[in-house]
Amino acid sequence: MKRIKLTVAYDGTRYSGWQLQPNAETIESVLNRHLSGLLKEEITVTGASRTDAGVHSLGNVAVFDTNTRIPVEKISYAMNTRLPEDIVIQDSCEVEPDFHPRRTDSRKTYEYRILNRKFPLPDCRHNTYFVHRNLDVEKMSQAAEYLRGEHDFKSFCSVHAQVQSTVRTVYGICVEKENDIVTIRITGNGFLYNMVRIIAGTLLQVGIGCLRPEEIETILEKKDRRAAGPTAPAHGLTMIGIEYLQNGFCKF
Amino acid sequence: MKRIKLTVAYDGTRYSGWQLQPNAETIESVLNRHLSGLLKEEITVTGASRTDAGVHSLGNVAVFDTNTRIPVEKISYAMNTRLPEDIVIQDSCEVEPDFHPRRTDSRKTYEYRILNRKFPLPDCRHNTYFVHRNLDVEKMSQAAEYLRGEHDFKSFCSVHAQVQSTVRTVYGICVEKENDIVTIRITGNGFLYNMVRIIAGTLLQVGIGCLRPEEIETILEKKDRRAAGPTAPAHGLTMIGIEYLQNGFCKF
Repeated sequence: MKRIKLTVAYDGTRYSGWQLQPNAETIESVLNRHLSGLLKEEITVTGASRTDAGVHSLGNVAVFDTNTRIPVEKISYAMNTRLPEDIVIQDSCEVEPDFHPRRTDSRKTYEYRILNRKFPLPDCRHNTYFVHRNLDVEKMSQAAEYLRGEHDFKSFCSVHAQVQSTVRTVYGICVEKENDIVTIRITGNGFLYNMVRIIAGTLLQVGIGCLRPEEIETILEKKDRRAAGPTAPAHGLTMIGIEYLQNGFCKF
Repeated sequence: MKRIKLTVAYDGTRYSGWQLQPNAETIESVLNRHLSGLLKEEITVTGASRTDAGVHSLGNVAVFDTNTRIPVEKISYAMNTRLPEDIVIQDSCEVEPDFHPRRTDSRKTYEYRILNRKFPLPDCRHNTYFVHRNLDVEKMSQAAEYLRGEHDFKSFCSVHAQVQSTVRTVYGICVEKENDIVTIRITGNGFLYNMVRIIAGTLLQVGIGCLRPEEIETILEKKDRRAAGPTAPAHGLTMIGIEYLQNGFCKF
């Protein structure tokens, strides 16, 4: 029995998110179906980031156990001939038998992308959130700095979430504009339910001048979801990748 | 009666190209239908670049005559509420009554984009051509230099094309790589049928080492379509924009 780790890129537009659900097509259901077909075993993957409907990925991680004799590095190629073109395996490798994609310490990176111009561009409609009001990127950057480090992010967590602790560490966060696209890039040891989208929605409030950058500090202190801005739409969000920290080393 | 010029962006994936065709949805048919609905007149647009099925645009141009009293600059907003989300008007303005989008001297810019990596990325599948073989971008750049200037581009023109002259001027051409995307950007006074896609297909032959850069010169001299490389697929091509040269000035 081997434990295999897949790096999975997808365009989330057509899917009801990552996680299995009755009567809905999800990334997990598609992976389970095609892995089972390829490997002639009943396969159930465990995902690292259970992304919402409409969220995209360049490097989400799925892990499963198999007895197959297909060489591990060939699984990515074989799967890509079976998968629909909006899901592509980027890598397949063997991992330790006790490796768990959510319980192993990691650094996850997400990007939230905003198209900021007078009119939308058809090409970006599925992977950027269109905002026509002029955004003050400098102020958004200043606001983002307050989120860096270890904080209780309860104000930035959907009220429906059931978690033991709402303390997380943001290792890096930046807001950059290139052409008409404003990108919020954030790396942390983990993210609460809807946390990146609520951060994006709150930084957007700063960008349009409805919040001052220093108000982020007050929002964190309040530990109340109602203090933060709205949840920005799912389709602007992309899970970029996950680095696993094992034996002091970073492993992608 | 006023003559109006629209700047039109579209994702060409769903359309059978620009030009009207029986029993097929085209950019022209969608524009005519929605302009006629908005302005309550029978409208027929004239396009600048009659792009093929699957080709995209950031700034193609459509011109039409109307008696409407709707302010010209409002037409873009009004049309965008009616159009499907894969076609977006970027600008509407009034032009001289004799302005013709194809007969007026202009500089047109196209980009051909290639995703060059081990596996495709779902996000780019409709607007880049995926090539897994490693491309020598330096050699492609050298090859592109031979195309700069005035030449008879007969070798780079689809044999089905009916044109009086196959001489065109390429004002600028460059090949650049950013992350995994190789972009061929080309500006000229006009392009023959399939010319940019045949240039892209030929530069790709250079990129994979099947042609040497200096062979481009021989290909031009032969004035024979069979001398050049294959026509690269439509979905990698985007019409970027058109500058019109009037009274010595450049007008977008």
